[in-house]
Amino acid sequence: MTVELICVGTELLLGNIVNTNAAWLAEQCAALGLSCYYQTVVGDNAQRLAGILRTGLERSDILILSGGLGPTQDDLTKETAAQVCGRKLTEDARSLSRIEEYFRERGLKMTDNNRKQALVPEGALVVDNDNGTAPGLILEKDGKRIILLPGPPNELIPMFEKKIAPYLLSLDPDGPSVIYSRTVKICGLGESGVEAMITDLEALSNPTVAPYAKTGEVHLRVTARAAEEKEAKKLVKPVVKELERRFGRSVYTTKNEVTLEDAVVKLLKKHGLTVSTVESCTGGLAAGRLVNVPGVSDVFKTGFITYSNKAKRKLVGVKKETLERYGAVSPETAREMALGAAKASGADVTVSVTGIAGPDGGSEEKPVGLVYMACFVCGNVWVERFQFKGNRAKVREASVAAALTLMRGCILEVFG
Amino acid sequence: MTVELICVGTELLLGNIVNTNAAWLAEQCAALGLSCYYQTVVGDNAQRLAGILRTGLERSDILILSGGLGPTQDDLTKETAAQVCGRKLTEDARSLSRIEEYFRERGLKMTDNNRKQALVPEGALVVDNDNGTAPGLILEKDGKRIILLPGPPNELIPMFEKKIAPYLLSLDPDGPSVIYSRTVKICGLGESGVEAMITDLEALSNPTVAPYAKTGEVHLRVTARAAEEKEAKKLVKPVVKELERRFGRSVYTTKNEVTLEDAVVKLLKKHGLTVSTVESCTGGLAAGRLVNVPGVSDVFKTGFITYSNKAKRKLVGVKKETLERYGAVSPETAREMALGAAKASGADVTVSVTGIAGPDGGSEEKPVGLVYMACFVCGNVWVERFQFKGNRAKVREASVAAALTLMRGCILEVFG
Repeated sequence: MTVELICVGTELLLGNIVNTNAAWLAEQCAALGLSCYYQTVVGDNAQRLAGILRTGLERSDILILSGGLGPTQDDLTKETAAQVCGRKLTEDARSLSRIEEYFRERGLKMTDNNRKQALVPEGALVVDNDNGTAPGLILEKDGKRIILLPGPPNELIPMFEKKIAPYLLSLDPDGPSVIYSRTVKICGLGESGVEAMITDLEALSNPTVAPYAKTGEVHLRVTARAAEEKEAKKLVKPVVKELERRFGRSVYTTKNEVTLEDAVVKLLKKHGLTVSTVESCTGGLAAGRLVNVPGVSDVFKTGFITYSNKAKRKLVGVKKETLERYGAVSPETAREMALGAAKASGADVTVSVTGIAGPDGGSEEKPVGLVYMACFVCGNVWVERFQFKGNRAKVREASVAAALTLMRGCILEVFG
Repeated sequence: MTVELICVGTELLLGNIVNTNAAWLAEQCAALGLSCYYQTVVGDNAQRLAGILRTGLERSDILILSGGLGPTQDDLTKETAAQVCGRKLTEDARSLSRIEEYFRERGLKMTDNNRKQALVPEGALVVDNDNGTAPGLILEKDGKRIILLPGPPNELIPMFEKKIAPYLLSLDPDGPSVIYSRTVKICGLGESGVEAMITDLEALSNPTVAPYAKTGEVHLRVTARAAEEKEAKKLVKPVVKELERRFGRSVYTTKNEVTLEDAVVKLLKKHGLTVSTVESCTGGLAAGRLVNVPGVSDVFKTGFITYSNKAKRKLVGVKKETLERYGAVSPETAREMALGAAKASGADVTVSVTGIAGPDGGSEEKPVGLVYMACFVCGNVWVERFQFKGNRAKVREASVAAALTLMRGCILEVFG
């Protein structure tokens, strides 16, 4: 089956916002095994939207629309879809009472506009919205489907995951099926290197293996389709196992929702370790990523940002001679920063980052993108040299990912 | 004139990447006074792309395509556009020598594939690519234009700004014109409040005034169109002045490229001030934003991340009694953090952030999203209370913007 994404909103046409809904829906549809050949953005204009809907119905089996279900005059996705399908709008009692409840719960006043959101095309399937006032809608026309979703991602995403994905799977002409996927997340290896090691697995058809490159990480999504979840899981399991075997310690998780910082914090907690950071060019961003993890306070107590040489000396006791002889961006300074942070904070694990993020400050000997890091784990120290590419923001982002990866690797080195 | 954006790439259809090109191009086209009614994404498929091109030529004056100009077999945007326009491809000597030079300069080996990138449709205008190997191309067909741009943003953006925007302006049927725009950037005021103060200006047609909401900021873009830049500037100037008058100190810049952290660092440099941060729930992100600014080392030396109570006491000397009596998230603690950071770092200006980012840790009295900040400027201290909405990431992002805004406000308070 083919699906087509249609995002409705003048703010998209004006470039006021980036179309993250399209990317998210596209990824979900691909995981569901649906082929998507077209994505369209169109404004809140009935005539143009109707044209796009008619074209879409000619060339695709399922149209998924997002946006334009709001309470204002501008919002006319529902009205236009109903018109294209030759349906009238009628008030849906259940939706109305849910909208009334939504406002009551929040102590807000419901306006007449909001009542409009309870109007649904005759014969449409109404999909409850647990996070907003506009219900989702599914219309059928000559064996094709038009699915209308609210635009705000915090409404669209849970509605799609809980209601629309199962619905789409139920349409499978080979009988109802489920999709099950797991993501093998790899840190510290490059994209091309990872891809070279999985060419055989990329040729599989069920489960499929698809790589997604992230900063400092590669995610391999393993997706299977089967009549029942148990069966789909059974197909995914051996491939995940094989990937774990091939990539060994570079795999930091096989769970979709776990991030690299989650994995590092989990590892610290597992071994009862506390952690501290000492950062120069990343200026607090490595600590900032650790603090993404709710409950990090059990392990992360203190961080140092030592941007100047003086701060490196004063806060974490880097020696004046070290700075003079080797410079602030050197393996020696990185090492003393990590050791000094351990001493000053009392943490079991520390990581230091010192480098040249650019655009200025580079030299032939120490070019922009050169970053040294050190990691201290219970008395042991490792120092690593990195040469990153890209602008200031990229160098810093890559450094943060590398710092987390280094920390993880060193803890595993000590604790196995 | 109407423009239509067509982004080519299977990775967009699969949701592997977010379509930031479309948003960027849409914003540029809007600023150029071009109306855009459709954006389409299509894969690297000749038949479907040809269909999209034909539909586009029927309904729009100008088609702007991005992507699919690479050296591989997959890349067929140029070939398909040439075919739709009934043109042959011929080797462009200038492009070939530029591609050869590109590889020579970088000490890389040029492959036969890359030679393909020097093929251009007969009669096409060739646009130099200063940051890659694929030249841009402009094709004319029956008074309509097809503009082909490379997909990588670091190639597309400079090419559009330097070459395509002036070309588009030269097409104006009322004679060549230029666009000039300035952005009045406002911090510390909400979007609805700002909009309420500019309803009269939003009704203007030349210049136009368009609001863009950012985290903790609202940007008002003032854009004029005229035969000459001087004239366009003359139209923009009084409106920018009027906006500055209305929003006073809340305007931190009227320059398009200046960020809030740039403005804060500039203000610090102007008054010869050094700065330090002390962060709890933001965990280094406020320092991280300051360190976005190249050359920040003149003013930013030291930052503290005091996530635990112990770190608050040890690093910046918050009193045990203060923490016990008022708690870590309190105006008193925020105040002592800012004062303590000033003492420990010797900085002239410090900002502290302590709050509950969630999802846990909230209470009836101190709910998730409650954040206290204090700012120290040369002996003076201000404390502020914020109640932010959203998840952990949103609360922290909003806190960082508010911390920069607070710092700026306090420095202005002291130094005028």
